[in-house]
Amino acid sequence: MTQFRWLTSGESHGKGLLSIVEGVPAGIPMSEALIVEDLRRRQGGYGRGKRQQIETDFAEIMSGVRHGLTMGSPIGLHMVNKDWENQNWRVRMSVDPVEAEVERVTLLRPGHADLAGTQKYGFDDVRPILERSSARETAARVAVGAIARAVCRVVGIEIHSHTLQVGEVRATPPAHIDWEAVDASPMRVADPSIEAAMIAEVDRTKDALDTVGGVFEVRATHVPFGLGSHVHWDRKLDGRIAQAIMSINAVKAVEIGDGVANAAKPGSQVQDVILPSSQWANRPWERATNRAGGLEAGISNSEDIVVRGFIKPISTVPQRLPTADLLTGEETMSFYERSDVAVVPAAGVIGEAMLAIVLADAVLEKFGGDHANELRRNFEAFQATVGPREPRA
Amino acid sequence: MTQFRWLTSGESHGKGLLSIVEGVPAGIPMSEALIVEDLRRRQGGYGRGKRQQIETDFAEIMSGVRHGLTMGSPIGLHMVNKDWENQNWRVRMSVDPVEAEVERVTLLRPGHADLAGTQKYGFDDVRPILERSSARETAARVAVGAIARAVCRVVGIEIHSHTLQVGEVRATPPAHIDWEAVDASPMRVADPSIEAAMIAEVDRTKDALDTVGGVFEVRATHVPFGLGSHVHWDRKLDGRIAQAIMSINAVKAVEIGDGVANAAKPGSQVQDVILPSSQWANRPWERATNRAGGLEAGISNSEDIVVRGFIKPISTVPQRLPTADLLTGEETMSFYERSDVAVVPAAGVIGEAMLAIVLADAVLEKFGGDHANELRRNFEAFQATVGPREPRA
Amino acid sequence: MTQFRWLTSGESHGKGLLSIVEGVPAGIPMSEALIVEDLRRRQGGYGRGKRQQIETDFAEIMSGVRHGLTMGSPIGLHMVNKDWENQNWRVRMSVDPVEAEVERVTLLRPGHADLAGTQKYGFDDVRPILERSSARETAARVAVGAIARAVCRVVGIEIHSHTLQVGEVRATPPAHIDWEAVDASPMRVADPSIEAAMIAEVDRTKDALDTVGGVFEVRATHVPFGLGSHVHWDRKLDGRIAQAIMSINAVKAVEIGDGVANAAKPGSQVQDVILPSSQWANRPWERATNRAGGLEAGISNSEDIVVRGFIKPISTVPQRLPTADLLTGEETMSFYERSDVAVVPAAGVIGEAMLAIVLADAVLEKFGGDHANELRRNFEAFQATVGPREPRA
Amino acid sequence: MTQFRWLTSGESHGKGLLSIVEGVPAGIPMSEALIVEDLRRRQGGYGRGKRQQIETDFAEIMSGVRHGLTMGSPIGLHMVNKDWENQNWRVRMSVDPVEAEVERVTLLRPGHADLAGTQKYGFDDVRPILERSSARETAARVAVGAIARAVCRVVGIEIHSHTLQVGEVRATPPAHIDWEAVDASPMRVADPSIEAAMIAEVDRTKDALDTVGGVFEVRATHVPFGLGSHVHWDRKLDGRIAQAIMSINAVKAVEIGDGVANAAKPGSQVQDVILPSSQWANRPWERATNRAGGLEAGISNSEDIVVRGFIKPISTVPQRLPTADLLTGEETMSFYERSDVAVVPAAGVIGEAMLAIVLADAVLEKFGGDHANELRRNFEAFQATVGPREPRA
Repeated sequence: MTQFRWLTSGESHGKGLLSIVEGVPAGIPMSEALIVEDLRRRQGGYGRGKRQQIETDFAEIMSGVRHGLTMGSPIGLHMVNKDWENQNWRVRMSVDPVEAEVERVTLLRPGHADLAGTQKYGFDDVRPILERSSARETAARVAVGAIARAVCRVVGIEIHSHTLQVGEVRATPPAHIDWEAVDASPMRVADPSIEAAMIAEVDRTKDALDTVGGVFEVRATHVPFGLGSHVHWDRKLDGRIAQAIMSINAVKAVEIGDGVANAAKPGSQVQDVILPSSQWANRPWERATNRAGGLEAGISNSEDIVVRGFIKPISTVPQRLPTADLLTGEETMSFYERSDVAVVPAAGVIGEAMLAIVLADAVLEKFGGDHANELRRNFEAFQATVGPREPRA
Repeated sequence: MTQFRWLTSGESHGKGLLSIVEGVPAGIPMSEALIVEDLRRRQGGYGRGKRQQIETDFAEIMSGVRHGLTMGSPIGLHMVNKDWENQNWRVRMSVDPVEAEVERVTLLRPGHADLAGTQKYGFDDVRPILERSSARETAARVAVGAIARAVCRVVGIEIHSHTLQVGEVRATPPAHIDWEAVDASPMRVADPSIEAAMIAEVDRTKDALDTVGGVFEVRATHVPFGLGSHVHWDRKLDGRIAQAIMSINAVKAVEIGDGVANAAKPGSQVQDVILPSSQWANRPWERATNRAGGLEAGISNSEDIVVRGFIKPISTVPQRLPTADLLTGEETMSFYERSDVAVVPAAGVIGEAMLAIVLADAVLEKFGGDHANELRRNFEAFQATVGPREPRA
Repeated sequence: MTQFRWLTSGESHGKGLLSIVEGVPAGIPMSEALIVEDLRRRQGGYGRGKRQQIETDFAEIMSGVRHGLTMGSPIGLHMVNKDWENQNWRVRMSVDPVEAEVERVTLLRPGHADLAGTQKYGFDDVRPILERSSARETAARVAVGAIARAVCRVVGIEIHSHTLQVGEVRATPPAHIDWEAVDASPMRVADPSIEAAMIAEVDRTKDALDTVGGVFEVRATHVPFGLGSHVHWDRKLDGRIAQAIMSINAVKAVEIGDGVANAAKPGSQVQDVILPSSQWANRPWERATNRAGGLEAGISNSEDIVVRGFIKPISTVPQRLPTADLLTGEETMSFYERSDVAVVPAAGVIGEAMLAIVLADAVLEKFGGDHANELRRNFEAFQATVGPREPRA
Repeated sequence: MTQFRWLTSGESHGKGLLSIVEGVPAGIPMSEALIVEDLRRRQGGYGRGKRQQIETDFAEIMSGVRHGLTMGSPIGLHMVNKDWENQNWRVRMSVDPVEAEVERVTLLRPGHADLAGTQKYGFDDVRPILERSSARETAARVAVGAIARAVCRVVGIEIHSHTLQVGEVRATPPAHIDWEAVDASPMRVADPSIEAAMIAEVDRTKDALDTVGGVFEVRATHVPFGLGSHVHWDRKLDGRIAQAIMSINAVKAVEIGDGVANAAKPGSQVQDVILPSSQWANRPWERATNRAGGLEAGISNSEDIVVRGFIKPISTVPQRLPTADLLTGEETMSFYERSDVAVVPAAGVIGEAMLAIVLADAVLEKFGGDHANELRRNFEAFQATVGPREPRA
């Protein structure tokens, strides 16, 4: 079922990240400039730690693109870790054996992969676990997502995100969101009236030597009918989106449309009434509301796809908390390495990438096509079939 | 990555449902009696419609099991649709062309696959869509889940569910749940003090010609360390579970542990402190709490896996609501066919099946093994390695 | 990558075979009559044993087809094993435990799964291995193949097979094969002059209490450009075809075009010269020859796809040969159960099914589409682009 | 089913090749030195063109290995194309648009992807097709294969190749092959008596302005019972091997054991008699012969796996042959770029890589395990179960 295949590699303090994307049609505009734009957006947001300023990520396109267009062949991406220049990391993370004694990491941080990872892989050192479980890897996902986004654009789909909640501070976004304003907002919030309160929440948290989570929302607009399918559980687009969003570091819940709130409401209040043709403004089959978040029975219904990720506060808390040691099992206190206080805005950008990847896959699955022209042609021919089957004159 | 493969087929009013499960090790106890027990639990629950009493599902094992043990070969399951005896369905759903005029279904029910499905597949009749998008298919999933549950049992994992919320009525389950009492409860609720209120909520909803949703919780106990992995996004167990639960009809949000609530809390309050060895009662690496729901960085951490599904109220509402007609695009009123009022208890049983399937797959992935003895042997040898690496005497 | 998914289940002496095919577009003509035609062709051929006359296979369509057309939902197939009526098998292969003592099979037949299978699965009885490794399972493949063939027909592809060699007797098929005559031939041979010699080879083998193998050829005609791809190893269509053909029981070598002979020839003699447009008769880009068997760099090149399967003589030889006992490891003599002498013609029909499955998958991958009309529309629009890019007037 | 996942990217004259390998257990010795050894062997062989001396391939390990051991995380490999330094390629293959006019390639070379690829992808230039379809990509496969080989070694499997045939000159390898001598032989031939004749065949071909193909044989030794399975068509190891070998550039036929020859022999002469325990020398269940090439019913039977690839002569023939032009469809003559005359020895090394990849996947599937120690422990426990079930004292 997978038409858009991808793998990433790379550790947080290793040489860098590689990504390979396989299954992209030929003829799609692609450049490093396009990718760097999303990487930059991932690194922003109020509440990030110092590392984000150090890195300024860049993904070099190694293959699969020629003269500004994809070639149909796999696209290779290479991102350098700036930290690698640091001699310490060249030793600690050396590919080859080193003579120097490299200290093991044995303190187990709850909320991270540390304990489960070392037990699973049989390590007596947390280092090889934490290096890959770090959120550094999401930079590679965002680069891949920029390519997926370009595939989505062939059929007109656009994908955006905004911050819905930081800690207990919740935004009330307007019906029509100004995405440029969101990109300009340090909290990536679509409700300007709440931005100051969110920033204050981050500052308050930082002063309290704590961290804070929140909720981001990703929206895909101009989505055609018919992505995903009800015919088998693993073709359902809502499930595929849920996996993609839940796989983002720190996300612990995923909601489509008003999924959480609707569980408490009566059925008569959660319907999205299908309007009669006399009331359509722009396209066939409009709705009065979009509580379903653009998905019914696992199929896109041409409304915006709206998905929310709930992220827990970052587990690396500045306060020192008790934990156990990997070697001895005895109590020790957590050691704080400088980190982010809040990452909701960045998580939204990663959410865009993951949604783009799922949609690109579903687009290729439905419409086929080896070149952008062929994909677009198939798409447009399908679009012409959408609407009432026998409309009265 | 998929070791436990399965496909289902069957329409709601067709001949019946087939399932094939491929990848089950040999030597696992299996019988129709084992499967029918889960099927019966799916059909129960206060608030179900009449069909559930008619069906009394049974899955005949067609292959893959001999003398009470799996053979390693694919397991085929055959479930008859009792409705098929009805002459109407034999005509309306005939495999072969029929002479009789079969009326098309053209009323589009919001919340169902009706609109998105007909547009995607190019139909001028909703029948071929609604037949497969019906929740009837979940009976096949539960049968497959019973086989997955047996695989999980080889390594000791048990899976249960209970109703956490119906409409606005929310249970407060005790720390230790009596699963037999849950199975005996008409609402499958683990908090006896709230059962009457839940039943009243269903009755009130029914009288109001409405439907109601809610929240179910699925728990896997005795889970070993190391299912899933942090090393690649699609190996993360939380994402795989999210897809499986979100793919259940009417589920619109998925939560792992306290994922929704934790998004509003400070980091210092959501940690699951790793206890030192001096405080362990039963096994290595115990925790003070389990807010993470048994999963850190996409890996099982030996705590119970706790996952919640938020289900919207059933879309088929007894009240007549306006909608559009597939053929003309003009307004029409929804037609009510007798249906369920509340399905949270049943959805929990389906959730058990889906979680069992994901865990069986992850167990086979980590431990390998073609016979239950081999799987168990590999598992036990791994278990012996869990714990502090160099514990002091 | 897999758009056309399928699983089969069933043992040789169990209740029967189930198959589920998932991913078939809607709107494709389908009937039990269509499937039974291929099943009948599989059971024919000179040299088959008595079982083939007993069975007269039939696959009941359980779902996925309505009023003669596919619905887009999974197609379930149910084939009864006629032998199951036999009380012995109901006990020996009972799903539930039986009171009767059931004798184990402990004689290890070389050439079968007996030894490797029992060691892999940890059995002390060959029965659960031989039941699934039997060629009975290929009946399910042929039924699935009939559905795949219908998908291929949407874009005009037709698939046939003929017997190229039986033992040492080799046919010289004419340039244009009369496929109706092949179907009427007891050896399924396209070269009438050699048929009598092939029959004599089977008779001679039978008299010698021996078995004989051979070579079948499968051809797909009216294949469009562009199935498969060179961009990644597992997209190459030649590899995917090789797996499909090699997976057929008794096939030990696979050849595309003149692959075996060309390994000994100079490069100047194996080229398929691309003719200039002035010499095209029927379609763009014709060739002088088709030594490549329709595939270059893993992509279909619009010539007929020609693939050959080399099958070893059936391992169950009427002569008694020495072997070892599973329980003791000591020498014993093979016991002969009546079997086929030659199966090349039947293997060709199975080869058609496997090639159809690979091509259906590749067709859906390239052209997409959820309904036959959409698939055909996408295909036709692509076909209009094939040809010289800037032909002179 | 895929435990060992990998993607490659890179064009022949682009910046270089990337590979990512996902699913490798932790704790396996790995280094660039290990990989370069196989890369060097791929570049050798009598009859290669000049490019192989230019390149001297090297794969830099970017991630997934620390202090000489795999970490369980994805392994990233980076290979530079030395040609990229050439200013011409920096323009012709520039990722970004260039101002210079870059001449299109429009001559269609039969036997290559040129025609089928341009038609599939809708190009009016062969360049983007030939860059990826070039055998340059096999360097990435060999690097990946070196990692797979290391996985195989955890359970003791070793993989070698030798040249069986060049043009019409066929070797008769001895029963026990001296693999070091093969590695030292310019033709990689195991039969020293035929080496001079093979070299003469290459020289004669070169003088005739032609190219020559041949046959290579890959052997896996110390293979345990039970890799692959008979239970489903796509688990059969012979099919998976056939795909892997057929996917190598220029391979047009694949043979397991004596698959081609056995198709012409009687069944009584192709059996591999299972010896009684009294005749076993080294291990349980020995055979008198190995005509089946180590695979029965798609399962490894503990004999050496023997697979042969038939490669056609290289399509780029020094002689000028007629062909057509992509733009006009009119006749033109092929243009010769210096290339290899014979590549059978190199193809054998690529065959080793592909077999290693399939076997590594099958090993991980059967034995599971996230660390080399766990994999080895599971393997050894299984090995202890192999043998007669109830041997007499």
